[in-house]
Amino acid sequence: MPKFQVDIDKVVGYKYPPLKVSFNKRDLILYALSIGIKDDELKYLYELDKNFTPFPTYPVVLNLKGNSPDVNLFAETVNFGNPIPGLPDIDPNRIIHGEQKIEILNPLPTSGEFEIHGKINGVYDKGSGLLIERTNTLVDAKTGKEYCIMTFQSFNVGYGGFGGPKGSKSPNYKPPKDKKSDAIDVLQTSKDQAILYRLSGDYNPLHIDPTIAPKLGFEKPILHGLCSYGIASHAIVKHLANNNPELLKSISVRFNAPVYPGETLETYMWKVPSEKLNETNVIFITKVKERDIIVLSNGLAVLKNPGKSNAKL
Amino acid sequence: MPKFQVDIDKVVGYKYPPLKVSFNKRDLILYALSIGIKDDELKYLYELDKNFTPFPTYPVVLNLKGNSPDVNLFAETVNFGNPIPGLPDIDPNRIIHGEQKIEILNPLPTSGEFEIHGKINGVYDKGSGLLIERTNTLVDAKTGKEYCIMTFQSFNVGYGGFGGPKGSKSPNYKPPKDKKSDAIDVLQTSKDQAILYRLSGDYNPLHIDPTIAPKLGFEKPILHGLCSYGIASHAIVKHLANNNPELLKSISVRFNAPVYPGETLETYMWKVPSEKLNETNVIFITKVKERDIIVLSNGLAVLKNPGKSNAKL
Repeated sequence: MPKFQVDIDKVVGYKYPPLKVSFNKRDLILYALSIGIKDDELKYLYELDKNFTPFPTYPVVLNLKGNSPDVNLFAETVNFGNPIPGLPDIDPNRIIHGEQKIEILNPLPTSGEFEIHGKINGVYDKGSGLLIERTNTLVDAKTGKEYCIMTFQSFNVGYGGFGGPKGSKSPNYKPPKDKKSDAIDVLQTSKDQAILYRLSGDYNPLHIDPTIAPKLGFEKPILHGLCSYGIASHAIVKHLANNNPELLKSISVRFNAPVYPGETLETYMWKVPSEKLNETNVIFITKVKERDIIVLSNGLAVLKNPGKSNAKL
Repeated sequence: MPKFQVDIDKVVGYKYPPLKVSFNKRDLILYALSIGIKDDELKYLYELDKNFTPFPTYPVVLNLKGNSPDVNLFAETVNFGNPIPGLPDIDPNRIIHGEQKIEILNPLPTSGEFEIHGKINGVYDKGSGLLIERTNTLVDAKTGKEYCIMTFQSFNVGYGGFGGPKGSKSPNYKPPKDKKSDAIDVLQTSKDQAILYRLSGDYNPLHIDPTIAPKLGFEKPILHGLCSYGIASHAIVKHLANNNPELLKSISVRFNAPVYPGETLETYMWKVPSEKLNETNVIFITKVKERDIIVLSNGLAVLKNPGKSNAKL
């Protein structure tokens, strides 16, 4: 008998109460800096640039940011909406971010007030833990316009063995064998990368507190997985989408291993055939150069082809 | 005849309308990062650190920040309260920050809403320009408690020759001859230092826009003078005040030459005798290593001596 109950029927399909979220231009610039964007791309950094635009993965920070302009208490933030009917209370320190995807439906404005509509899509028993798949849709609360759908899988260590479905494996996007990558991006993160990134909304002490990181099984504070995600997304848009953020349709990854601030991230990208004529698929991995390990695996980005949206139809 | 009139009697003593200003913990952390503070000093960077505290020069950003959590239009910000009776309208692009001082009266809380009470102390005709000396006092609007007095001199290029007083020279704090400095701090700024620093409230395009900087006489965007001021202040507190920010009583500098983001700042500090038994004076200069020029001159910091405040009285 497990020490807790999971009522699958109640959990799957659960809708979180709408979460008010907001951001401004300063938030967008801070995010862009914190994913390593430099002064040769002012359209993401300078509010008066004639092409000023959000970097399109920005919304992934909003679920933890909410509509606060200040720091927040991480444990309270991750537990908003708790208890979820059918699930035990989950210790925020036992949540590992497993996979992340964003699908972009409409270009994001440069500021505004929105809502996140969250929903639990699936709950799986992986033995050593409980896997929860959740989608967050960013919507204009007034018009209902949807901007993006963010899917994330969290792995909740120690909450497995409750007798639930194992779930199917995620699709596996492996780099093509014997084909040189089409582009490689190299970014040395700074020692304060996580301290900067957390100001976007994820104030988990794991990313800054040297006394807490070891308690959670890490040698020292680690970089946010979503910071590496932003760095890799930027690498793909820059190298394979003419640095046109409007061409990014979706991007998904698996968080394979932690990154320590100061390490160098190498993102390897391969263009692969898409079933759709007006799109290009990009398979990618991101490695830490200093330790030669893969930190982001199973990466897939879908790019719209520039100026070809109707040409081949 | 000058093309404009300055009515000294009206200008001197002019009080600006109280300016509402505010900041939060996130603002303090962002400022600390933007003056180059690293993860070995978490008390300035981590809101849950048991010694979390503002870096004491933070208030110098508030006059341009106001109480906005977002970017602002610099030209509008510097002109708030204009027109000043007795002064011509001044083109914000012709304002050079000449000197800056902060005197700390009470330790700053880690967030809150305040007012700046600004006053013009003097207006001087320097021939090539008009020098305005202004003090800004940061106060608790409810209790009237004063936190600090910030004095700055702005040099307004092209507005001289109106027949006003020349004013006396500022006192000259020169490093002692033939005495080795007591400490040297070296900080390599990052290429995006100004882009980060501006998020504290000074959105002057001069610090980011490569098309505007040349129009204002600079090869490329320059670092904010107050960023270098923060870097030097931190160097002094770290090396000569046991990194105890409460020991900083005042710090003043002259902005001698611009810094380009990415350059290395070397701050040389000399302890010199103070007339007060419980204080130490520090004379300092800051140089750009790569070009071997002095960028901050005439630096004087007054430090309280640790634990001796009553011992020798």
